[in-house]
Amino acid sequence: MDFFFNPEGIAVVGATPNTLKGGYAILKNLLTGYKGNIYPVNPRYSEIEGLPCYPSISSIKGHVDLAIVFVPAKLVPAAIEECAAKGVKGVMIESGGFAETGQDGSSLQQSLKDISKKTGVRLWGPNCMGLVDAVSGYAFSFMNPLALQHGLLPGGVSLVVQSGLLSAGFLIDIMTHHITGISKVCSIGNKMDVNECDLLTYLLKDTNTKVIGFYLESFSDGRLFIDLCRQSKKPIVVLHGGKSKKGAEAAMSHTASLAGNHRVISGALAQAGVTEARDFHQMIDLCRSMASASRPVGRPGRIAILTFSGGSGIVSADFIEEQGLSVAELSPATKDALVRLFPDWMPVSNPVDLWPSIEKHGGGNIDVYSMALSAVLADPNVDAVFLHTYAGNFRIGLNIADLAEQTRTAGKPAFIWLLGRREEIFNFMTEALSYDIPVFRELSRAVECLAAVFHQRNPPSVVERLQVKEEGIPLPGELNDVLATVSGPLDEHTSKRILKVHGIPTVEEEIIADANQCKNTVSRIGFPVVMKGLQQGKVHKTELGLVHLGINDAGAARRSFETLMEKMNGQGKIIVYRQVEGKIELILGLLRDLQFGPCVMLGLGGIMAEILSEAVFAPAPLTEQDALELISRLRGQRIFDGFRGEPPVNRKELARMIFALGDIGLKYPRIQEIDINPMIISENGIVAVDATIVLG
Amino acid sequence: MDFFFNPEGIAVVGATPNTLKGGYAILKNLLTGYKGNIYPVNPRYSEIEGLPCYPSISSIKGHVDLAIVFVPAKLVPAAIEECAAKGVKGVMIESGGFAETGQDGSSLQQSLKDISKKTGVRLWGPNCMGLVDAVSGYAFSFMNPLALQHGLLPGGVSLVVQSGLLSAGFLIDIMTHHITGISKVCSIGNKMDVNECDLLTYLLKDTNTKVIGFYLESFSDGRLFIDLCRQSKKPIVVLHGGKSKKGAEAAMSHTASLAGNHRVISGALAQAGVTEARDFHQMIDLCRSMASASRPVGRPGRIAILTFSGGSGIVSADFIEEQGLSVAELSPATKDALVRLFPDWMPVSNPVDLWPSIEKHGGGNIDVYSMALSAVLADPNVDAVFLHTYAGNFRIGLNIADLAEQTRTAGKPAFIWLLGRREEIFNFMTEALSYDIPVFRELSRAVECLAAVFHQRNPPSVVERLQVKEEGIPLPGELNDVLATVSGPLDEHTSKRILKVHGIPTVEEEIIADANQCKNTVSRIGFPVVMKGLQQGKVHKTELGLVHLGINDAGAARRSFETLMEKMNGQGKIIVYRQVEGKIELILGLLRDLQFGPCVMLGLGGIMAEILSEAVFAPAPLTEQDALELISRLRGQRIFDGFRGEPPVNRKELARMIFALGDIGLKYPRIQEIDINPMIISENGIVAVDATIVLG
Repeated sequence: MDFFFNPEGIAVVGATPNTLKGGYAILKNLLTGYKGNIYPVNPRYSEIEGLPCYPSISSIKGHVDLAIVFVPAKLVPAAIEECAAKGVKGVMIESGGFAETGQDGSSLQQSLKDISKKTGVRLWGPNCMGLVDAVSGYAFSFMNPLALQHGLLPGGVSLVVQSGLLSAGFLIDIMTHHITGISKVCSIGNKMDVNECDLLTYLLKDTNTKVIGFYLESFSDGRLFIDLCRQSKKPIVVLHGGKSKKGAEAAMSHTASLAGNHRVISGALAQAGVTEARDFHQMIDLCRSMASASRPVGRPGRIAILTFSGGSGIVSADFIEEQGLSVAELSPATKDALVRLFPDWMPVSNPVDLWPSIEKHGGGNIDVYSMALSAVLADPNVDAVFLHTYAGNFRIGLNIADLAEQTRTAGKPAFIWLLGRREEIFNFMTEALSYDIPVFRELSRAVECLAAVFHQRNPPSVVERLQVKEEGIPLPGELNDVLATVSGPLDEHTSKRILKVHGIPTVEEEIIADANQCKNTVSRIGFPVVMKGLQQGKVHKTELGLVHLGINDAGAARRSFETLMEKMNGQGKIIVYRQVEGKIELILGLLRDLQFGPCVMLGLGGIMAEILSEAVFAPAPLTEQDALELISRLRGQRIFDGFRGEPPVNRKELARMIFALGDIGLKYPRIQEIDINPMIISENGIVAVDATIVLG
Repeated sequence: MDFFFNPEGIAVVGATPNTLKGGYAILKNLLTGYKGNIYPVNPRYSEIEGLPCYPSISSIKGHVDLAIVFVPAKLVPAAIEECAAKGVKGVMIESGGFAETGQDGSSLQQSLKDISKKTGVRLWGPNCMGLVDAVSGYAFSFMNPLALQHGLLPGGVSLVVQSGLLSAGFLIDIMTHHITGISKVCSIGNKMDVNECDLLTYLLKDTNTKVIGFYLESFSDGRLFIDLCRQSKKPIVVLHGGKSKKGAEAAMSHTASLAGNHRVISGALAQAGVTEARDFHQMIDLCRSMASASRPVGRPGRIAILTFSGGSGIVSADFIEEQGLSVAELSPATKDALVRLFPDWMPVSNPVDLWPSIEKHGGGNIDVYSMALSAVLADPNVDAVFLHTYAGNFRIGLNIADLAEQTRTAGKPAFIWLLGRREEIFNFMTEALSYDIPVFRELSRAVECLAAVFHQRNPPSVVERLQVKEEGIPLPGELNDVLATVSGPLDEHTSKRILKVHGIPTVEEEIIADANQCKNTVSRIGFPVVMKGLQQGKVHKTELGLVHLGINDAGAARRSFETLMEKMNGQGKIIVYRQVEGKIELILGLLRDLQFGPCVMLGLGGIMAEILSEAVFAPAPLTEQDALELISRLRGQRIFDGFRGEPPVNRKELARMIFALGDIGLKYPRIQEIDINPMIISENGIVAVDATIVLG
């Protein structure tokens, strides 16, 4: 892939001297930064911008690693054939007019794919803005050359984006506002060949890249992407566009790609240790925060707030608690140091309001900020500092160089919230950027980013698989037949038998053939019992009146048996089991996602929790840690710790079942869906009370 | 109150020629904008800034409406006495050193209050930044005079803030960035006399004020504030600082005032039609949005997105759905109009991606934005436009004047998301501000503000009280005695009797005195029954084993009776009632909030929902609409519409119970708390199954 980033020789197919056209912009941008040989290709010109222009790729004498193609879509296949013949390694197709335009464009795009397969030439795009590398100064893009007139701002953040905007207008926006420096921005368009996985692989090894941000509307290979993220030691941020139904519709028409179910995507990203973003500037804020600061090892996120305003201290404390960080309890030594700065009447607390001290020392030579910063950075109870300051005409002069030196020495990050006059703000941000200190204009955003730094985790890349007892029982032959031949939903009894064999405990139930057997069976099982009528293809038993709960004696059981038989017209099965008592009900499920394959789902059960539709997802297979983290991601997971006098739930036992369910999904590709609802936490452990397996 | 805003004659007590001091800044700021007579007061000078300086207030010859006091705290009481003697109507005390500094300061503050009561002089502050009026150009504040050097930016947003920051550094920030124009900013500090209610009353009548934003750490009179908000025809935005425990602690030390329970505050604000903000800039964004746009009457919020980027269209659609707005389905006429702008291959959909059209017409004279805007504004299915544009070096030239004219004519708001180069962004924002068109830098913020405009509601100011059947049954004498004399929790039986008399249906239960009565009673009631042992002061009956559920025959009932008797050592009462069946369980409660008085609470019940602690609050009394809206604010309120085959719940019936509960709180001030848990939705309606009333 390096030939895309550091090519030896670049051909520009579709170069033109017409300054209004993209073919001119590509050439002009190359001339600004690229040091190698540049070969404009266009049969209509002999020279452009002082360079000799070639009638065709084959007529170029020198070595060409990369061709940037910007000609009408229908001319692209021939151009690529020619590139392949010339020995070009990679082609960036920046022209549009492919899959994003409908059926004809899709066919055209397929023909490019065929050429790539046949010849081995790698294709980037089509329908993209190419690549900008702010460190090397390369811009392989038809973005307006004026955008580069103030130069690129180099930094540690790389982006891979499925939207041209982010590599053009947005890039100019964040660079001209001095929000962050950038390493590489890769606009991948329809990503027919080179996709986010290829680029992630490359960027993980790129020494200039500290953090990688993605804007993706679809995943080319969700499973591979997640595996790569897991193995990454660099923080990764993903913004997924197309979460809503309408958003997903727009995604379809925009890049002709498939937008997955967002909750599944969210689960997969969380499992892989990826930080999820929700908006463009916010994604950049997360990226630059993680590029400039890393979590001090083993520190939970206790924040000291240094402010010049009581109100902003209070609102910051609100956000810190909301984001799962904590407002640090300052140590006695810190308080002693601060009290010496403070006026007599003022008690020391965190948030540390420095304004009265600034007023007190206004005439002197004491740098109140610097001294307070030293005190809190030295405090073992403080993991990071959130510093509020003002750029402009007040007596608040923060020495950025001193701040940078102090935080570097202490090994603790400092995030800045900055207010002020427009020009002074810009100057401050410029200086802070040179010291790699993150500055924010909103309190909530600053705290959100600080939390992302502290909550960032590296999942183990070595997959410690959970051991599930296989019980030594092979799947009985008739169940094998069912799994191989049936389509649609299996009945509850068959579904539970399959689950049980694979290590998921189910209620012990029996099938009742006639009224006599009914009496004997229920007496043996013990009351109260549940009786259900099962019919092929009917999953909503309760609504059909086929579920009888709380049967307390043999007479009632017999009456239930007869009623159920009658309702089913003598068809179907009747099952009976001892009613399971337990206040905690869960839903456990499996679904087969188009992008991520088999994914497990865990949710709170019962009608009252179901209405709130709290559920978390994770792609299989899971490690033990994955399964435990999946459980801990569930809102309301405190319920497992012994809520309201209930005994605590064995999380490892639950994790094993989640794992087993994922394994079933991996083992039987014909299983489309599994619904265990409810899974009840009873005195005797966790047990599947009702279940449906759906075959494809 | 008008003498604070448009005073005839102002004395500056503590004026000084020392340019580093606040007493100089106040004078300098007055000279910049105030047109009336200014009287510096300081015995040490005879002239300051060309004005004669007076040794005392009493020595001033002219009329003085307002005195701005900036002298050490201990000198303030004498100054106010003098002001009162002179006939000054209002005093702005900008000095600090009062309640915010501890016990001594509190006493000093109390002495000011006493003077105010005695003399009738109104006091603003202390510990505040005073008042800035950007329309009249008045700054009655010790903020740095340099801040005003570029002038104030007048507009329709007024602020009342309990933090000096927002009226100084923050104000300069938003004005120099041309984010919004401002009418009045009132910094109220310790608000010992003039408080948020006084200023809300004034600003509701102020013709320059279109929207009022508050930053409050406490409410001086929560109930009055809410009543005023209810009656307001102007949008009101409130940011409450001190939500978290830590935040609240900081609030205590910052303004020595009481921060209430945030969920109660949130409920009270929602009930009064107030929009809640969470951060400073976000509060301003909400205010300026509502100042520039109002909801087109009767329109639900169907948004047309005009963009130059597919990706930002997709992410916008995600936010629009998330915020409870919808992406408009364009009418055929609109599609016809748009398709004429589009290249042939491109289908028309919303989001409307204009980039291909801009490319198509790049060389021509067609203003694609303007034409697309006309088309969507004319569409009856479109309620507002979210327009994305770029300021800088692309071929995207939005004509702001045309946009303003078109949206004004159509009566539909247009919100702009703007990217671009720093200088061009500023110029664009400046022009857009002059046309009162809101511009945003983040997609999520723009959509959030658009949603706030569409979700803004005016609750009816005329309180249509719900009628609760009083049943003609007066509270029996012994219950009256209980309510008058007992402290702490009442037992379940007594609690339910009190609730029943006030119109809240409860289970029909009986007290069992002995084993014989037990048999007769349970046989009459019908099985299954519930038996409970009640002991004075013991509220956690389940944990004590005093609740027996599902008793199915007389023998079991007798055994339960004996077990309960034994457990209670023959003390206490045993109650029995027929077990209530129903899948939907609620919690209904009442608490007495220090700022808002009696407030009702509605939550989902059962252990599975309780763990998610979903609950909503509203202060009593409620109108029918309030109670129905309280119900609709509950997350998961869809459960009342017939979820999973359950019959729908009568919302009006539930509303009447909520109302009745609030009424009980208003009627009996000794009731501190009521907990109805569970309230079960059964076949026979909604019924309180367990309840506890706690007396103070």
